[in-house]
Amino acid sequence: MKNLIVASTSTIHGEAYLEYLLGAVSELYKNTSEILFIPYARPGGISHDEYTSKANEAFRKINKTLKGIHSYEDPIDAIQKANGIFTGGGNTFLLVKMLHDLGLLSTLRAAIFDGTPYLGTSAGSNICGVNMQTTNDMPIVYPPSFKTLGVIPFNINPHYLDPDPSSTHMGETRETRIKEFHTQNTIPVVGLREGSWLEVRGDKVVLRGNHSCRVFVKDNIPYEINSGTEIDNL
Amino acid sequence: MKNLIVASTSTIHGEAYLEYLLGAVSELYKNTSEILFIPYARPGGISHDEYTSKANEAFRKINKTLKGIHSYEDPIDAIQKANGIFTGGGNTFLLVKMLHDLGLLSTLRAAIFDGTPYLGTSAGSNICGVNMQTTNDMPIVYPPSFKTLGVIPFNINPHYLDPDPSSTHMGETRETRIKEFHTQNTIPVVGLREGSWLEVRGDKVVLRGNHSCRVFVKDNIPYEINSGTEIDNL
Repeated sequence: MKNLIVASTSTIHGEAYLEYLLGAVSELYKNTSEILFIPYARPGGISHDEYTSKANEAFRKINKTLKGIHSYEDPIDAIQKANGIFTGGGNTFLLVKMLHDLGLLSTLRAAIFDGTPYLGTSAGSNICGVNMQTTNDMPIVYPPSFKTLGVIPFNINPHYLDPDPSSTHMGETRETRIKEFHTQNTIPVVGLREGSWLEVRGDKVVLRGNHSCRVFVKDNIPYEINSGTEIDNL
Repeated sequence: MKNLIVASTSTIHGEAYLEYLLGAVSELYKNTSEILFIPYARPGGISHDEYTSKANEAFRKINKTLKGIHSYEDPIDAIQKANGIFTGGGNTFLLVKMLHDLGLLSTLRAAIFDGTPYLGTSAGSNICGVNMQTTNDMPIVYPPSFKTLGVIPFNINPHYLDPDPSSTHMGETRETRIKEFHTQNTIPVVGLREGSWLEVRGDKVVLRGNHSCRVFVKDNIPYEINSGTEIDNL
């Protein structure tokens, strides 16, 4: 049975890395002390080692150890044997290209469907959707496909931002970008504000955290779903 | 001799479409009254016809008429015969996919090198760079390649935004995104603030408008170039 946390962000303003999520993460990984870390998204371009070391600092607080997938000779075997998996945020294009190039997507998908506890933050949450086409990231590399894991039946827009009525900037709002997505795609999109996450248990998806989320369905007016509510029938 | 205006944005806050640029645009197209419009970026998902009609409203003020490339049976022939070309903003992925799918990039590049006056705004400016990998847009479609026109020897980041020190949002700043780009690419990037444009005459590129631009070169500290200055030797 699927068992995931799909979080908008790793970090809330003014807090330490993963701090707001540590209770839920501790519960997610209650049956394992070692977790496989996928650092391919490399936020700010830091190395796989640096990223793994940074993430380990947070996990030490809940007595867990992360081991970076890049340190294994056989990453497919590492995923199959893992008792818990965490994919960190950063650049979604880089993450998805690495997963495709190394042929890891189908193995990762199978592990999640088999019940391996999975945590994703930001880019690591984007890849839980049907495709990565609602990422906010810059296309710094060209992945062989935009398809992702499809372990939830909709797309995520992480770090969702409401339009700022006082802004004088003429770049598209997030809502306009998602509307443009829906001129070309029919996949529903859940805009997850920072501090929100999805708790996925089997086919049940419940919104957690301090905020409502914003739901975008093609040809419909966007609407809000409150925290604590199941997200169903989009 | 190349003759281009490569603008950060079509519209400045509080002004009409293209208003701030009309003087420069009138000068660019001084030898023609009819301009070929490339509406493929479809801002907000509007149709090619709607977009052409909207852009025509601005051009009417300088006694010019736009004709949308979608209304021609042979778009390659339309580009080759055009006396002026304007590519409007919107979604860069959509624009680049259309240009690749219709096989128009090499023809458009040749026309620009032959001296056909060209105006690009936002997505229409992104495609003047070496590739589209410093766009801010959402990847709503999958183009067969990220390569673009390469009529200037660097990439553009349009709608460039300085980091906001008062922001509590944890999404990447524009500067962080471009830094991530430079972990994977060596192409210099010019961050063009809204209200700025590049005036390209042959191989000479001069920054115009009210702002300085921010220049990003791999492994170097970003720096500013003032309006009125040639951008050279990046």
